[in-house]
Amino acid sequence: MFKKIAIFGVGLIGGSFALALKKAGAAEQIVGVGRHAATLERARQLGIIDVAAASVADAVGGADLILIAAPVAQTAAILTSIAPHLQAGTIVTDAGSTKSDVVAAARAALGGKSAQFVPGHPIAGREQNGPEAALADLYVGKKTVLTPLPENAEQDIATVASAWQQCGASIHRLSAQQHDAIFAAVSHLPHVLAYALVDDIANKPHAADLFQYAGGGFRDFTRIAGSSPEMWRDISLANQSALLSELDAYLEQLTRLRALLAAADGAAIEAIYSNAQRARHGWISAIETAEQ
Amino acid sequence: MFKKIAIFGVGLIGGSFALALKKAGAAEQIVGVGRHAATLERARQLGIIDVAAASVADAVGGADLILIAAPVAQTAAILTSIAPHLQAGTIVTDAGSTKSDVVAAARAALGGKSAQFVPGHPIAGREQNGPEAALADLYVGKKTVLTPLPENAEQDIATVASAWQQCGASIHRLSAQQHDAIFAAVSHLPHVLAYALVDDIANKPHAADLFQYAGGGFRDFTRIAGSSPEMWRDISLANQSALLSELDAYLEQLTRLRALLAAADGAAIEAIYSNAQRARHGWISAIETAEQ
Repeated sequence: MFKKIAIFGVGLIGGSFALALKKAGAAEQIVGVGRHAATLERARQLGIIDVAAASVADAVGGADLILIAAPVAQTAAILTSIAPHLQAGTIVTDAGSTKSDVVAAARAALGGKSAQFVPGHPIAGREQNGPEAALADLYVGKKTVLTPLPENAEQDIATVASAWQQCGASIHRLSAQQHDAIFAAVSHLPHVLAYALVDDIANKPHAADLFQYAGGGFRDFTRIAGSSPEMWRDISLANQSALLSELDAYLEQLTRLRALLAAADGAAIEAIYSNAQRARHGWISAIETAEQ
Repeated sequence: MFKKIAIFGVGLIGGSFALALKKAGAAEQIVGVGRHAATLERARQLGIIDVAAASVADAVGGADLILIAAPVAQTAAILTSIAPHLQAGTIVTDAGSTKSDVVAAARAALGGKSAQFVPGHPIAGREQNGPEAALADLYVGKKTVLTPLPENAEQDIATVASAWQQCGASIHRLSAQQHDAIFAAVSHLPHVLAYALVDDIANKPHAADLFQYAGGGFRDFTRIAGSSPEMWRDISLANQSALLSELDAYLEQLTRLRALLAAADGAAIEAIYSNAQRARHGWISAIETAEQ
C-alpha cells in the first residue's frame, strides 16, 4: 500500500496509472502535478487524483512514489524541479517512450540521488489524450518495461514493479540501450515511415486524386501518421542514434528491393514478401495464443 | 439484363460480382470457368454460378459479358484462350489491379478484336479468398475504375459500367497510365514498404525480442504484409515502371528525413510530421463525410 503517490502529468498515461491503483486499493492518496490548473481540476473532478498540488515541493514531500508521465521533452526539467525536495525513501519512476535520454537526464538532475530513480515504460496507449481518456484497465494484460540503473536497490525496483503489476501489467527488464534499440525498430521507425509516406503523397500536385483512390490498406498502414507530431518529434530526437541506425538498415533493404524490382527478379521479390508474410503470421499467432 | 455472363475465376472478386448481379436480377445465366474443377463445383453449390463450363469455347459462346477475375499473371493466357471463340457483340472486361500490362496483353491476344475489351478494376477486397469469401454486397459503396481503350465504343463502356453499378459500385474513368501511377502510390508502394520492414526485422538475429515488444501500431502498419506474396509479386512486376518511380520518390523523401534527423532539426521534422497528420486527418474526415 502506497501512502502518497505524486503524478506529474495526469493525462492518459498518468491518469490511467492513478485510476488503476485506486481500483486495486493500492494508494491512500494520489497527488497530481502539472502546468495547467484546469487539467488538474478536471482530473480531480474525474476522481483520478485526490489533490492538485500547490507546488512541486508539496507534491514531492512525503511521497513514497513519484511517477513522471509528462511529454518526454519535459522530463529533464521535471527531474530538476524535483531534485531539491527529494527525500530519502522516495522512489521516482517515469513512463517515457525512450530511456537512454531519460537516464542521462536523471543522472544530471539528481546527481548522488540517481539511485532513487527507476526508469520505466508502460507499453499501452489510445488514440485519445488527456484526463478524460484515462482508463482503470489501460494496463491490464500489457507490458511495462523497466530499465533499472546499476545503482538502483533491488527493493526499489521491486516497489516500482509491484505498482505496475497492481495496474495489471507484466514486468520486463531491459537495459536502456536494449530498450531504445528495440523500440526504434518496432515503433519509432514505422512512425517515421508512415509520416514520410503521407507527407510525400500530400505534397504531390495531384494529391487530391491520390487520396481519392486510397483504400483500407492505406488507412491501416498510415494510422500511426495520425499521432501527435510534437510527441513523435521529441521521441525521434530523444532516440536519434538508435533510430538512425534502424533507418539506415531499412534504406539499405529498400535499395536492395528496388534493384530486384528494376531487374524484374520475381523469385527474389517473392522470397522477401513470403518471408515477411510468414514472419507476420507467426507473430500474430503467437499474440493470439498468448491472449487465450 | 444480361443473358449470359461468363466469369473466369470464381473466387472473392468474380464470385462477389456474380452474387451481386444475381441479387440485382441482372443476369439470366452465370457460367464459371477456372483451372480447378473442385472450385467451380463449390461455386455452383454456393449458388454463385449456374453452370461450370466444360471448355473455354462453351463459356465464351453466346455470352454478352465476360469477366476475367483470375490472378493478374494469368490474364494474358486467358485472353489468348478466349480470342478464337470471341463473337461480335460479346464484351470482355477484367478486374486486375494493374491496367497498362493488361491493355498490352489484350492488344496482343485479341488483335483486331481489342475494341471488345473494356479494362476495369473494382477497388474492394477482403482478407479471405476463394468462393466461400464471396459476398453479394462486396462492391456496395465502393469504386470501380474503368480505363477504356480509344477503340472502345461508348455503348460497350456503358454496358460494363452498368454491370458494376448494379453491384452497387460507383464508376470512375482514368487512363491506364493514370490508374497505374495512382495505385503505385497509394497501394503498391505501401505493400512494398510493409513487406520490406517485416522482412528486415525477421532477418535480424534478435528478431524474437523485437516481435515480442511490437504493439498495436506495428500490427496496423504491417497488416498488408500478411497479403499473398504471389499476388503482390505479380502486381509489383506488372506495374514495375510506376512503382519504381514512386519508390524512388519515397527513397528521396526518406533520405531527406534521415538528414534532418542526423542534424537534430526538430522544427523541420515536426513540419513533415504535422503536414502528414493534417493531410491524413483531412482524408479521414472526407471519407467519413462521404460515408454519411
